[in-house]
Amino acid sequence: MNKQQLVESIRTKKNFLCVGLDTDLSKIPSHLLKEEDPLFAFNKAIIDATRNYCVSYKPNLAFYEAQGLVGWNALIKTVNYIGDSHFIILDAKRGDIGNTAEQYAKTFFESMPGDSVTIAPYMGEDAITPFLKYENKTAIVLALTSNPGAADFQLIESNGTALYEVVLQKTASLGNTDNIMFVVGATRPEYFTKVRAIVPDHFLLVPGVGAQGGSLEEVYKFGANTEVGLIVNVSRQILYASNGQDFAEKAAVVAKDYAYQMNKLMEHA
Amino acid sequence: MNKQQLVESIRTKKNFLCVGLDTDLSKIPSHLLKEEDPLFAFNKAIIDATRNYCVSYKPNLAFYEAQGLVGWNALIKTVNYIGDSHFIILDAKRGDIGNTAEQYAKTFFESMPGDSVTIAPYMGEDAITPFLKYENKTAIVLALTSNPGAADFQLIESNGTALYEVVLQKTASLGNTDNIMFVVGATRPEYFTKVRAIVPDHFLLVPGVGAQGGSLEEVYKFGANTEVGLIVNVSRQILYASNGQDFAEKAAVVAKDYAYQMNKLMEHA
Repeated sequence: MNKQQLVESIRTKKNFLCVGLDTDLSKIPSHLLKEEDPLFAFNKAIIDATRNYCVSYKPNLAFYEAQGLVGWNALIKTVNYIGDSHFIILDAKRGDIGNTAEQYAKTFFESMPGDSVTIAPYMGEDAITPFLKYENKTAIVLALTSNPGAADFQLIESNGTALYEVVLQKTASLGNTDNIMFVVGATRPEYFTKVRAIVPDHFLLVPGVGAQGGSLEEVYKFGANTEVGLIVNVSRQILYASNGQDFAEKAAVVAKDYAYQMNKLMEHA
Repeated sequence: MNKQQLVESIRTKKNFLCVGLDTDLSKIPSHLLKEEDPLFAFNKAIIDATRNYCVSYKPNLAFYEAQGLVGWNALIKTVNYIGDSHFIILDAKRGDIGNTAEQYAKTFFESMPGDSVTIAPYMGEDAITPFLKYENKTAIVLALTSNPGAADFQLIESNGTALYEVVLQKTASLGNTDNIMFVVGATRPEYFTKVRAIVPDHFLLVPGVGAQGGSLEEVYKFGANTEVGLIVNVSRQILYASNGQDFAEKAAVVAKDYAYQMNKLMEHA
């Protein structure tokens, strides 16, 4: 699914929920551990249960890589199982010099059918541009993240402009609103106004609602644009809603509730 | 091999060369493509030929990931084949929030027998600290990289201090000279004096000599400390010295020449 189809899907489904597949072998229900591929069995059940209540899935690659070959295999099966009905975000946070970035782009946009990949901007322009050469694919660049450490470097100001603002300006100039999106954490809703002053039309991938404590209402109030322009990710709160036989059912309840809240916000906009 | 053993190895071998295993399936000699695992066959031959002329190997994960499961398998075989005689740097440039960073640390320090992993600092403290909890392992944090885009963000100054300097200061305060090293590119030798003013005792991983044009002499002049404190990486110039049957022999000639130049620099220090 490309960005235009994502916009259409948000309009049709009336939500902008992304289910983050941070699938942790030590947290999934124990009855799944006897399956041949527990990671995929868990994801398949979660996807079946939440498909109608979200527009996007975001596998977090760390959790798959940690399981070695078995994990990579589960990741590939998961991405294929999601298919083209949802916007697939491969949360990899890669960033490297040009010839290496090309290899990463090849991995996520050719070897794997990802629609988008998250990118760390520290290394600058040539770490980002190789991802922009693919039609119908999107680079999602870290701007202001949701974690405590975000303040260490991203908020450092130079002549009144914070680093994350420079990253927004510089990166936006490299592409367009179809092939670039930004990560902006929900834990700092007061910054959404500043972000929108620089990138009014780009989509923002918003982590930090749920387990990390960010407010969906505030994110929508300060972050939404005419296309909605938001993908709000919830991971742990959905995935681990229950660790019993009913985990998928309970996950669906939480996802459905988020979708409902989003629907309300969109109706009142 | 831990950092203390690396220091010993540099002293004994009288060089500080790292061979970067950026093994690109489209660049390796065509006669290897009929092997069952061409990536590993190439690496094995390169490792056999260069073992005596270097103290470290640095597989660049992008090139393995781009080949999917086959690539991950070749990476694991390569790391195991290198063994404990060299300092193994997994060049992954990972960086994510705490619970995700823990998964990456698990991947590279438990699932795989890496001695060190490269880390992108954009997300701050909690992206780095999970890697510091492992004894005898090292996090190598990007400070000032060798690529053109490094200037986009890393050189931005706030009150006279550049971002890369803040990264050095902040990161150094999180650990010690055994569990933290920094990436500083050889393409900007004029900055080594500034780097050494902040982190006189840390090891620096230095890319950018060779294909990228940095000068080994200048890096040594401005960057060496009493333990040498440098790991200079050369990738393409060694790996692709020839693309015929003699590729490993020719790679050894280039590696041996670097080792010789390093030996001379160390003798005259």
